[in-house]
Amino acid sequence: MKKSLLLTVCCVMLAFGLRAQIPALERIEPMFWWAGMANPNLQLIVHGNNIASRQVQLSYPGVKLVAVHKVENSNYLFIDLKLFSGIVPGTFPIKFVKKGEKDLTYSYSIKARNHDANRIQGVTNKDLIYLLMPDRFSNGDPGNDTKTGMLEQGVNRDSMYARHGGDIQGLMNHLDYLKDLGVTAVWMTPEIENDEPHASYHGYAVTDYYKIDPRYGTNELYKQYVEKCHAMGLKVIKDLVHNHIGTESYLIKDMPMKSWVHQWPKYTNSNFRDMAVEDPHGSALDKKIMLDGWFDHRMADLDETNPYVQNYLTQNHIWWVEYAGIDGFRLDTYPYNDAAYMAKWAQDVTKEFPRLSIFGETLVWSVANQAFFVQGDKVNRGFDTHLPGVTDGVVKDAIIETLNGKESWTDGVNRLYAVLAQDFLYADPTKNTIFLDNHDMSRFLSTVHEDYAKYKSGMAMLLTLRGVPQLYYGDEILMKGESNPDGLVREDFAGGWKGDKANKFTAAGRNEKENDAFNYVRKLANYRKNTTALQTGKLMQFIPQKGIYVYFRYDDKKSVMMVYNSNEKEASTTTDYFAERINGAKKAKNVISDETINLDKLTIPGKSTLILELLPATK
Amino acid sequence: MKKSLLLTVCCVMLAFGLRAQIPALERIEPMFWWAGMANPNLQLIVHGNNIASRQVQLSYPGVKLVAVHKVENSNYLFIDLKLFSGIVPGTFPIKFVKKGEKDLTYSYSIKARNHDANRIQGVTNKDLIYLLMPDRFSNGDPGNDTKTGMLEQGVNRDSMYARHGGDIQGLMNHLDYLKDLGVTAVWMTPEIENDEPHASYHGYAVTDYYKIDPRYGTNELYKQYVEKCHAMGLKVIKDLVHNHIGTESYLIKDMPMKSWVHQWPKYTNSNFRDMAVEDPHGSALDKKIMLDGWFDHRMADLDETNPYVQNYLTQNHIWWVEYAGIDGFRLDTYPYNDAAYMAKWAQDVTKEFPRLSIFGETLVWSVANQAFFVQGDKVNRGFDTHLPGVTDGVVKDAIIETLNGKESWTDGVNRLYAVLAQDFLYADPTKNTIFLDNHDMSRFLSTVHEDYAKYKSGMAMLLTLRGVPQLYYGDEILMKGESNPDGLVREDFAGGWKGDKANKFTAAGRNEKENDAFNYVRKLANYRKNTTALQTGKLMQFIPQKGIYVYFRYDDKKSVMMVYNSNEKEASTTTDYFAERINGAKKAKNVISDETINLDKLTIPGKSTLILELLPATK
Repeated sequence: MKKSLLLTVCCVMLAFGLRAQIPALERIEPMFWWAGMANPNLQLIVHGNNIASRQVQLSYPGVKLVAVHKVENSNYLFIDLKLFSGIVPGTFPIKFVKKGEKDLTYSYSIKARNHDANRIQGVTNKDLIYLLMPDRFSNGDPGNDTKTGMLEQGVNRDSMYARHGGDIQGLMNHLDYLKDLGVTAVWMTPEIENDEPHASYHGYAVTDYYKIDPRYGTNELYKQYVEKCHAMGLKVIKDLVHNHIGTESYLIKDMPMKSWVHQWPKYTNSNFRDMAVEDPHGSALDKKIMLDGWFDHRMADLDETNPYVQNYLTQNHIWWVEYAGIDGFRLDTYPYNDAAYMAKWAQDVTKEFPRLSIFGETLVWSVANQAFFVQGDKVNRGFDTHLPGVTDGVVKDAIIETLNGKESWTDGVNRLYAVLAQDFLYADPTKNTIFLDNHDMSRFLSTVHEDYAKYKSGMAMLLTLRGVPQLYYGDEILMKGESNPDGLVREDFAGGWKGDKANKFTAAGRNEKENDAFNYVRKLANYRKNTTALQTGKLMQFIPQKGIYVYFRYDDKKSVMMVYNSNEKEASTTTDYFAERINGAKKAKNVISDETINLDKLTIPGKSTLILELLPATK
Repeated sequence: MKKSLLLTVCCVMLAFGLRAQIPALERIEPMFWWAGMANPNLQLIVHGNNIASRQVQLSYPGVKLVAVHKVENSNYLFIDLKLFSGIVPGTFPIKFVKKGEKDLTYSYSIKARNHDANRIQGVTNKDLIYLLMPDRFSNGDPGNDTKTGMLEQGVNRDSMYARHGGDIQGLMNHLDYLKDLGVTAVWMTPEIENDEPHASYHGYAVTDYYKIDPRYGTNELYKQYVEKCHAMGLKVIKDLVHNHIGTESYLIKDMPMKSWVHQWPKYTNSNFRDMAVEDPHGSALDKKIMLDGWFDHRMADLDETNPYVQNYLTQNHIWWVEYAGIDGFRLDTYPYNDAAYMAKWAQDVTKEFPRLSIFGETLVWSVANQAFFVQGDKVNRGFDTHLPGVTDGVVKDAIIETLNGKESWTDGVNRLYAVLAQDFLYADPTKNTIFLDNHDMSRFLSTVHEDYAKYKSGMAMLLTLRGVPQLYYGDEILMKGESNPDGLVREDFAGGWKGDKANKFTAAGRNEKENDAFNYVRKLANYRKNTTALQTGKLMQFIPQKGIYVYFRYDDKKSVMMVYNSNEKEASTTTDYFAERINGAKKAKNVISDETINLDKLTIPGKSTLILELLPATK
């Protein structure tokens, strides 16, 4: 996500003990836990007025009270529990006692785990991810549009920074649309509480880690949403923010300790320079500002070296997976995090959920800068991040350069070739999420200057290159918008609100060109869904010649040949140079038109891409 | 070197046995060898009319005739010898006998090695390399300008492709100039025989691996040149071409076997795409054309997988080091070579000469593409190339972008920062040779559009960044020229020829501005020569701020601070941000002007660079 996302109206200074009048026992997190987790340790955070003045008492077979930690702020206790294997699920009281005062009691549950096979499946290169912003996709429950007591009130669909009313129910109402399109996994930008006074729709300034934002729904509804997805054969990705916390969170307004977040003598922004982390010649100060500077006035930088913070975040993430059964995590602003903690985090969560998938957000310059952050340490970093893949912004930039740029040795049509050739820097580039755009940049159609042939070529590349493709909501119906200001790329999906003039979720509601685009993406997405060569197959690419870039995806079942003509005008090519992969085939099926064509000579319209399934030579 | 270097007048087809009338014993190579080499094996190539019809006889204590190989062409024999340790230097006959014919005899010498300490010193980051083309630097011996019997006749200084008459004696006459300038190592483009009909001055189409081109001098003179350099405290780099061979070589005109070079059904150029070698998704055909395609019609691509070729090249290179005592090798067109052979080659030559230094020519897109070729395999190549460093064209491009470009996140002033931050890809980036230009590209002064402030900033960067700096002849006297056509960057050094209008080797012959440039480079080069911080010291760089890029070189003796102002106009900066390296110093010496300045605030003219030696805080 980008620093410019939020209207930063004022600088919120760090609060510490400012909220004296909190309840005697305001909350315990995690609110409940499960028996039989891989990690037997559990650390409860207890928040309540002067709670540190009380003794903690609990007794339950298989639960050991290991330690109670008092911290700087007497409104907090941290309780270390050990849960022995074989513990029987059940409920027991945790008492907070103080002489001369009434006991405080919290009823704590240890629940049974849910081992259903269709939970926590992991998102892989077999999938197609659909990214959406829940406030902007569909309003399924107008009753939750605004909530009493929350800082931002009301909806205003005319303002790109105000709330629009979209919610989880709205998304649930349209899962059939996504399924039909060929999508297999849904990634919402953060749907947990962001009780911020402005631009709260944005979602990356979390104020309650354990609660779905009431304007999107409830925890229970979120769980139902995941279950519905699974029942329909869709997977769910949750968007996590390790790096920062919304300044309206109780953890900031009444901080457990000063070191919960990074403190600076005066407000200090991150310099947003990943290179300061990578640079072997870098200064300690540049690196500190990169890592510990705040992302925004309203996004305090968590001190991820603080073990309490570490436990808090890791447990929260594990909690959501076990609670809702989600399939994968997307990790926001990955390079800004404490690297050692993130590596430990990845090991801790995948130890609990071996199938869970993880990818991190990077928005960096080059393949080397991306590879620095990924698993396997093929680039001399000195330790293993345990991050399997990243959001592959470099391939995104390369696709755009390949479509828009003027040809030279590594520009224009040669850029994508050159970037993919650098895959030697990765342990496994197929773990990267590839995309054409997201909520932080211009929509793809605008990036290619609304050139429809380029749009289709971009979609063809997205759905045929190596990695996990991610589509941004509405691109399939030709939504457009420039990234400056951000809101223009976060417009509502037409038809998602009752009374919308048009309903683009249906063919009848789309115009002819929108249907053509939708059908193109649907055709290709569904072809990909049924073609392992495009999912897990190998990639072979050839040096572009005369502006024509040819690559193949292939496995022992099928070979698919992509031929992109970067020239403005129609061009032809013979295919004998590609004998290595064509392997004697004489004919191919055009995947979009279903026509059978001869392979001896191919003619490709300007800026267009042929997608050809090779037909066996014997046919 | 570049493919456009030679006028390719015609396509020379592969000759095989075309020259029937060669002498009965034309040559044996290596002509002699040494006792006590690390590798006891020696393979002699024997060329003579139908030599394969004869028996080989030799007898010398400590020499074992292991095998005699006949190959496709009966004009060749390959003789495998084993030289036992303790062999006494001496001379013995090798006889080629045939019944009914007179014996042919070659008097073979095994010489004593020369272990003088100032031979084979290796070129490191303590050095400053001066690159020149011997035909274009100085004509010390007009008597050798043209040689009877050679294919290109005469000199014509008006033609940029003709020979100009420069030679080794000319260079020897001006070593004092280089020494005064602060140069410590000299790299000539290839000085061995290039008996080509056109553009033979160029040097990369070798026709005799064991012979200094007669128009440059003799083997003996070359040896004297190296000895003179060593006596003056200068080192010598030899430019080697593994990849290809001049088509006028006896080895091409009467090839030992078809597999001496790569054969193609019709003439096939390399595609000149290093990425085809690096790409894990690359096609076998693209890679084959990259590696086995010819560099030029007159530069046949050697088959470096052929063990005879391997032995021939490796022994030749070892021969030159032991013969002349040279200090380092520059390896032409490194990515085009057979990687396995080059790794073995590097191990073989450094086993003989542990101090010998090696760097390879790469001209590629990015740090990752460079790092692919260097030692230590930090980028997942799967094997170790044993190549310590490359010609760092990516840093060169970055310096130019930093000087010429418009600032953005990774453009303009930020580019050099961004590229150096990728040094994590190398096992040791200080082994790279850094440069601003060479004989294959526009001269630096022309690249910066003759902006003198930028010129000085570029020279400052060259002489203060990490790596082994290389200066291109004449840049210090403001020679300029665009790379298209090549010849314009290969003009004669004025004063190198008797009768030249001006003699730029002397202050009196240079105009005021040329003297200013020369004095700037000399001042800095000599300062560097005496400042270990700039040679072997660590580098620390800071993220550029407001167009000002600051970096330090430092060791336990000194800290030197460079401040480049990329803005068009004068700019100022405080220095508190750099406290980490300034370390309490209050004053600094301006290395160029020798003035002492206060460090609290620095003012830098537009496009200029301050070079400041920090003075200890106690002073």
